[in-house]
Amino acid sequence: MATPHPHAGDPVFDLHVGGKMETVSTVALTGPEELSLAYTPGVARVCEAIAADPSMTQHYTWVPNTVAIVTDGTAVLGLGDIGPAAAMPVMEGKAVLFKQFGGVDAVPLCLDTTDVEEIIETVVRLAPSFGGINLEDISAPRCFEIEARLKERLDIPVFHDDQHGTAVVALAALTNSLRLTGRDAATVRVVVQGAGAAGVAVARILLEAGVRDIAVLDRQGVLSSTRSDLTPVKAALARDTADVVGRSGTLADVMAGADVYIGVSGGQVPEEIVASMAPEAIIFGLANPTPEVHPDLAHKYARVVATGRSDYPNQINNVLAFPGIFRGAFDVHATAITEGMKVAAATALAELVGDDLREDLVIPSPFDPRVPGAVREAVAAAARADGVARR
Amino acid sequence: MATPHPHAGDPVFDLHVGGKMETVSTVALTGPEELSLAYTPGVARVCEAIAADPSMTQHYTWVPNTVAIVTDGTAVLGLGDIGPAAAMPVMEGKAVLFKQFGGVDAVPLCLDTTDVEEIIETVVRLAPSFGGINLEDISAPRCFEIEARLKERLDIPVFHDDQHGTAVVALAALTNSLRLTGRDAATVRVVVQGAGAAGVAVARILLEAGVRDIAVLDRQGVLSSTRSDLTPVKAALARDTADVVGRSGTLADVMAGADVYIGVSGGQVPEEIVASMAPEAIIFGLANPTPEVHPDLAHKYARVVATGRSDYPNQINNVLAFPGIFRGAFDVHATAITEGMKVAAATALAELVGDDLREDLVIPSPFDPRVPGAVREAVAAAARADGVARR
Repeated sequence: MATPHPHAGDPVFDLHVGGKMETVSTVALTGPEELSLAYTPGVARVCEAIAADPSMTQHYTWVPNTVAIVTDGTAVLGLGDIGPAAAMPVMEGKAVLFKQFGGVDAVPLCLDTTDVEEIIETVVRLAPSFGGINLEDISAPRCFEIEARLKERLDIPVFHDDQHGTAVVALAALTNSLRLTGRDAATVRVVVQGAGAAGVAVARILLEAGVRDIAVLDRQGVLSSTRSDLTPVKAALARDTADVVGRSGTLADVMAGADVYIGVSGGQVPEEIVASMAPEAIIFGLANPTPEVHPDLAHKYARVVATGRSDYPNQINNVLAFPGIFRGAFDVHATAITEGMKVAAATALAELVGDDLREDLVIPSPFDPRVPGAVREAVAAAARADGVARR
Repeated sequence: MATPHPHAGDPVFDLHVGGKMETVSTVALTGPEELSLAYTPGVARVCEAIAADPSMTQHYTWVPNTVAIVTDGTAVLGLGDIGPAAAMPVMEGKAVLFKQFGGVDAVPLCLDTTDVEEIIETVVRLAPSFGGINLEDISAPRCFEIEARLKERLDIPVFHDDQHGTAVVALAALTNSLRLTGRDAATVRVVVQGAGAAGVAVARILLEAGVRDIAVLDRQGVLSSTRSDLTPVKAALARDTADVVGRSGTLADVMAGADVYIGVSGGQVPEEIVASMAPEAIIFGLANPTPEVHPDLAHKYARVVATGRSDYPNQINNVLAFPGIFRGAFDVHATAITEGMKVAAATALAELVGDDLREDLVIPSPFDPRVPGAVREAVAAAARADGVARR
């Protein structure tokens, strides 16, 4: 309890002494007989069985239940590029959440390289040891290429949580917000501010869910083909969003009359722009700790307000998604996490709210005990439907 | 209990269902307050503290207590090159032993590459996540270069257990065997059969311990400068062993009159060669499951007999060494595992036998509860003496 350390007495640091996780044996080794089963000579027969039939890995190792949490420390929380060593406490926390909410074993791996090719090669070489790869806190646009190429090369789930975890929970909250305000995905007008990992993924999952009128903005304004400064990822997204409905310009231009604002950028939206939105607006300010629109301001103009914070209602928290998504994927030995599995996770989350739906309850609490099971079952079923389940 | 699996009913396979280890949280996350300490927003302050002072990693992460068990699956037990997937049950077993006997958290990493450069680069990139690297079951001579170059590049312990774990325990058993038979390290005549990972390391630690007359053999005979077919590692070893005393030739040549035989090669020594050794000989046949000299045969000619097997007395088992060595190194945040630390571990193991020393007790049992603590203390003290302790 009283381990001396430099920040003793500070509850956050006190809790972190020695880290937040450990590895533990699931077998008893109390004497030579047990040792001869779990280690030499007995273990040799298990090795031979796997050498003869690699699918035996699924039965006789911890691999199929274990995820690698891989980061290069370039986009950690709101702290930015703090490097691999300083990223570890976040990754350990993630590992703890994987286990607590998903029963998934998780190993935090903070890589001492920021080179895209080196990260990809490293993860490919590590793949035999893991049932899935959770990419974490890798900066955009590198994260897009890393994820896409790892998905091509590996036959296990690869999932960049900053993109897809955020997107799944945002879609769930938006689905319920649309229901509450009597709107339809096909006609709703959405503004996504931020075109990093989360912004791109949020826009993509909204398209997948049938939203047709989306304007995505980076710091220079709306992503549209009128601009010549877009990265390939942004240019492709522009063609599928603002270009479709002919929008371009500034935040003020697209917010006027918009139904939904989703902020994943940091920064602050001026009040006059918030005030220009449609009646009964929906505002998700997801930056932490300071939402793009403070809830007090948002409530002056919007009917539904969500943030990333635990101290306000409607918390958009990735922990609602990633443990159940990997749990469901692992249950069926999925070879990938498909768009269908993500949308299924969002739908399951939205449906959990059910008849309790109201302005300050569009998404379940992270501590709602029904959440992991509901996501798990929906994801496993979607994996089977999408043909990526191996059992 | 009754999980269906292909080899159900076989005790070894039954024990391996689901693997042998898991990751577990050491902090409770029972509600939003705990979550806000262990994860966002609280964790950000811990990340910032480490970014400002990387030594804070030692206090606030699991890194300083965690070892990566790294293999490429090329020399697994006596099974040879069975690949990374099939190597996993051995690596999990090793991880379980690290925790049980050393309190060291351990992550098994089976790499999908056998390229020396790729293995080195991969481990270097992973290093921020670990307090030490245990190389395992990597074939010779690749293992020598991989270990040497990783030691150069990293400031954490790098330890190839197949080499040094075996060497430490063999030295401990030999120290007591010499004492029992009234021999002196400086004058004893030793034959080491096998010039792979274990053979080279055994010869090196015997030199470190003052043995002067050693002949090391590979399949072609004694390593000596009379041969032109030696790898650089073998040529260097020849200069320090057989060349010093002018030996060369075959196993029969060097066994005639030898005091000590240490087999780390597999294969079988013909009885007439065993019979040619000096009176009161010392025979360690360490191949598993079939020693180079069967104990029944060895006892006809030798006073002290050791094997790698748990079902005979005097088991030379690496588990006597590696957990306590890493525990001691981690206790003082050692930057390396030095020759002095290895010899100290061997000395501590030998001394534990104490006045109980007799022909069938030259090395403690792996389940002797005094072992891990004795090795730990000796290694930590040697790390301080060698100037590699950071605290």
